[in-house]
Amino acid sequence: MEWEEIAAAKKTSLLDLIPPPWRLSPAELPSVASLRNVTEYACNFLNWLEIEITNSSSTNILDKIRSREWTSVEVTRAFCHRASLAHQLVKWTNCLSEICFLAAQRRAQFLDEYLATNGRTIGPLHGLPVSLKDRFNIEGLESACGYASWLGEKKDSASEGTLVKALRQMGAVFFVKTNVPMSMLMGETSNNIIGVTINPYNRELSAGGASGGEGALLAMKGSPVGWGSDIAGSVRIPCSFNNLYGLRPSFGRLPASGLVTSLPGLPVADSVVGPMSQDLHSLSVMTEAMLDVSPWQEDIDVIEMPWREEVLQATRNRSCIPGERNGRLVFAILACDYTVNPHPPVQRAVKMVRQALLDQGYEVVDWDPPHHSIAADLLFRILGSTAGQEIRRAVDASGEPPMQQMQSWYDDLETEPSSTADFWDLCRRRKLYREAYNSYWQSSRERTNSKRYVDGVIMPVAPSAAVEPGLSGYYAYSGIVNLLDYTAVSFPVTFADKDQDRQRNGLEPLSEADEVIARMYRKDFFHGAPVGLQVMGRRFQEEKVLGLAEAIENALQEARPA
Amino acid sequence: MEWEEIAAAKKTSLLDLIPPPWRLSPAELPSVASLRNVTEYACNFLNWLEIEITNSSSTNILDKIRSREWTSVEVTRAFCHRASLAHQLVKWTNCLSEICFLAAQRRAQFLDEYLATNGRTIGPLHGLPVSLKDRFNIEGLESACGYASWLGEKKDSASEGTLVKALRQMGAVFFVKTNVPMSMLMGETSNNIIGVTINPYNRELSAGGASGGEGALLAMKGSPVGWGSDIAGSVRIPCSFNNLYGLRPSFGRLPASGLVTSLPGLPVADSVVGPMSQDLHSLSVMTEAMLDVSPWQEDIDVIEMPWREEVLQATRNRSCIPGERNGRLVFAILACDYTVNPHPPVQRAVKMVRQALLDQGYEVVDWDPPHHSIAADLLFRILGSTAGQEIRRAVDASGEPPMQQMQSWYDDLETEPSSTADFWDLCRRRKLYREAYNSYWQSSRERTNSKRYVDGVIMPVAPSAAVEPGLSGYYAYSGIVNLLDYTAVSFPVTFADKDQDRQRNGLEPLSEADEVIARMYRKDFFHGAPVGLQVMGRRFQEEKVLGLAEAIENALQEARPA
Repeated sequence: MEWEEIAAAKKTSLLDLIPPPWRLSPAELPSVASLRNVTEYACNFLNWLEIEITNSSSTNILDKIRSREWTSVEVTRAFCHRASLAHQLVKWTNCLSEICFLAAQRRAQFLDEYLATNGRTIGPLHGLPVSLKDRFNIEGLESACGYASWLGEKKDSASEGTLVKALRQMGAVFFVKTNVPMSMLMGETSNNIIGVTINPYNRELSAGGASGGEGALLAMKGSPVGWGSDIAGSVRIPCSFNNLYGLRPSFGRLPASGLVTSLPGLPVADSVVGPMSQDLHSLSVMTEAMLDVSPWQEDIDVIEMPWREEVLQATRNRSCIPGERNGRLVFAILACDYTVNPHPPVQRAVKMVRQALLDQGYEVVDWDPPHHSIAADLLFRILGSTAGQEIRRAVDASGEPPMQQMQSWYDDLETEPSSTADFWDLCRRRKLYREAYNSYWQSSRERTNSKRYVDGVIMPVAPSAAVEPGLSGYYAYSGIVNLLDYTAVSFPVTFADKDQDRQRNGLEPLSEADEVIARMYRKDFFHGAPVGLQVMGRRFQEEKVLGLAEAIENALQEARPA
Repeated sequence: MEWEEIAAAKKTSLLDLIPPPWRLSPAELPSVASLRNVTEYACNFLNWLEIEITNSSSTNILDKIRSREWTSVEVTRAFCHRASLAHQLVKWTNCLSEICFLAAQRRAQFLDEYLATNGRTIGPLHGLPVSLKDRFNIEGLESACGYASWLGEKKDSASEGTLVKALRQMGAVFFVKTNVPMSMLMGETSNNIIGVTINPYNRELSAGGASGGEGALLAMKGSPVGWGSDIAGSVRIPCSFNNLYGLRPSFGRLPASGLVTSLPGLPVADSVVGPMSQDLHSLSVMTEAMLDVSPWQEDIDVIEMPWREEVLQATRNRSCIPGERNGRLVFAILACDYTVNPHPPVQRAVKMVRQALLDQGYEVVDWDPPHHSIAADLLFRILGSTAGQEIRRAVDASGEPPMQQMQSWYDDLETEPSSTADFWDLCRRRKLYREAYNSYWQSSRERTNSKRYVDGVIMPVAPSAAVEPGLSGYYAYSGIVNLLDYTAVSFPVTFADKDQDRQRNGLEPLSEADEVIARMYRKDFFHGAPVGLQVMGRRFQEEKVLGLAEAIENALQEARPA
């Protein structure tokens, strides 16, 4: 079979897995021009209970199943239905890569019976549907990850990682896996099998990537919580583009075994897994649950560091003492990385956050660390040190063409891996950079009024509010966290607004990339796209960055007109 | 200047730093034939107070300084004197690489005045002399590490790592740095500057390496506690050969910044630092003190994992309930790695420990993990992936010849680094091996009577009780811990005994290496050499392996004739 047939067969087989009553005819899809934002459009096809369920947070869902107000079967069915609609609605089929509704339904039934029989839940995530990026191996499903040549191999249980096994053990229900870009290494999501994953808030734009299917699905409320992975922003970019929260932990905090990869053996700066959701609290719920199963027993890369509620609590305490200015959190803001000016919607988001924090009495300082462009350059040279051998192998195996965004890289004649001496030298420079950045952070208390260390650094995730499909490519804002192996939470702030976000003309470009990216901005085109930012903490400060995001969230809420 | 002059000048300058009254004429050195074990010989030149001080443990010294029974000046002077004797006594000058007695004396004076004035110590290590392997940069001293070309560069304070700064801040007194082999990557210690560091227990043999100067100095009681580093056994081998205790922590537990290296940029399986001492308790004291300064603030590689007294205590609790067999610790023993049979003294040590543990009612099982030879092969291929570029550079820069043990490697025509693709593949295989080993450990409770996991694995550190200079070379017993990034404590068990340790003849060799190593054993030659073993725990189980070593120590003590 030619790759075209293999890919088409996969695409069709996915649609076939959607129960006929849930299928939509193309005529039911509004045009982009008539409906740019389709995040709520699915409600036209859902009943009231399905809407109530799918609009609920993870905690709420877990509570209602536990109290037997909802059955797991009802909950699973509602998300399967909404996910099906999401997959079909967004311009064309695109946010899902695997569907296992039947298995999910059986699993939900089992959980309902377990609860009825035993009078207690099977675990802390009893009945919660959880979506996963295609990279996570699940028994019985493929992990093609956008390569036609990787289709056809159903994974077995031995290939499953600690996270999948732990989620199942805790009572989660798997029902879909979500689309990723060919190579899994782009900030948007497209491949020759499923197609392009589009932004449900603005169907002119991309959902981002590499966890873009996850981003679109969660934006459509087709899942209450999902897991992505992040090597240069792949959790945070789709979160920022889809009005979501996402956590990028440090390497070794959460179990990342059992994922397929385009960079096998990469010994530094490897991807990490992180939860993504419409609500911030779900990130803590997921992270705490995952640490409560002692994942370090099974996963050799995980550090024995249990969930530290006291760290989250200490952060909270420092955000809710209105009178006591000195104990309050100290934020730094990096509004621009000196290489690429963020688009006007992102600049406005930064201003909004700054003002909201100042209004709440937090100290906010500027941030002038070792130049981020050095970090981004090192990160991509490290990731590119084998000249993408595995990517070429996976693409060439089926004869499919590389995605247009990869074409110039693919055509490059430099396809030889570097020498290990050069690679070690990159690693050495990475370490020096991390040391310099850490020293800068250590010195931050010399620059704060309160003489405290900066607690978190707020900055853009990307220079734009989402991106036009095919045009992603600047990852220094997100990649800095990966190069440093720091922690970050991305959070929603606002939406691009054609009336407020006008490009200032006549500015001297900061760089060639700045010029290119500035030209991409058109206020009408981006109108309605979500704008997220991120708050970065130091290494293994997951609980703290979750607390910082909470403080920012509360400040923004106070600032919003009631 | 030629390298010979540079090296000779360094050697002479070291001797010149020994105060004249402490110098020995060659005539005062007994011949090896007349006195093989010189560990106590220094006492002939020490006064009673000096002997009492240098025979004391770290804790005792700290207590006596705190209670003002001893001054820091007295303590420092005693160790400077005994270290001077050690350096001169052991066949020829050799265990020290740097001497800073004057600075130490001034520092001690300052500490005494501080205590007198303020009525309290400056920190938990107030007045304790601490020796360091030459790799640790200290302001004002060189870190030549056995390369003539690296001589002449006095390090500045910016080059100091977190550990050195923290020790100083806690009140430690630096007085010497200790010798290492050229390349810092041998299991014995020799270079063209200082010479060969000899085993004080048996001057026919090597002190081991790469922290061999530290091993010999501590064996001579020229220091109460020291710090080495371990990339394939460099802490544990000299401990095993010199009747010492040593800790090999997991990478990231203790701060290893500010060390010079022959493998700059190495991104996996890099060396770690660990304390070494004549008494086990000093290892806990040092580790706890080092974690109490929150080294993760300054050192980007250190994990935020404070000292866990509860883990040590839990381990202790499981070793001191005589009646309750089920709760007791479970040990596994790997007596032979299937590639090289340990020499008879090491075999006897394993038997002694097994019997002692059984006598105390511990469960002891055999250990049959994924073959250690795979791990050792991977480790050395990883470390060798740049073909030792930096080593060649450092050797060639002065024109000095490589040490005889390095000659065949040096003459190898394969001097090109491997490709990064090959390097990543080694890293991938390292990860697979670690996963397989971890699975084996996870499955251990299926094989224990108590249905508990194995708590620690006891095995040789090296196949021999010390080694003849020039003949070290088999590192699979120690290197397994490094490849796995597990934790281990090496501990003394017994001494080679010509009457008990006879080679059995006619055994089929397990491998070529086995044949070579078996031939090295001669019972008279090794007589009197210390034999140590190690107990290995899983990743980041430093407190636990220290507790396991304590349990073994107590069992051995019970077993020894009173």
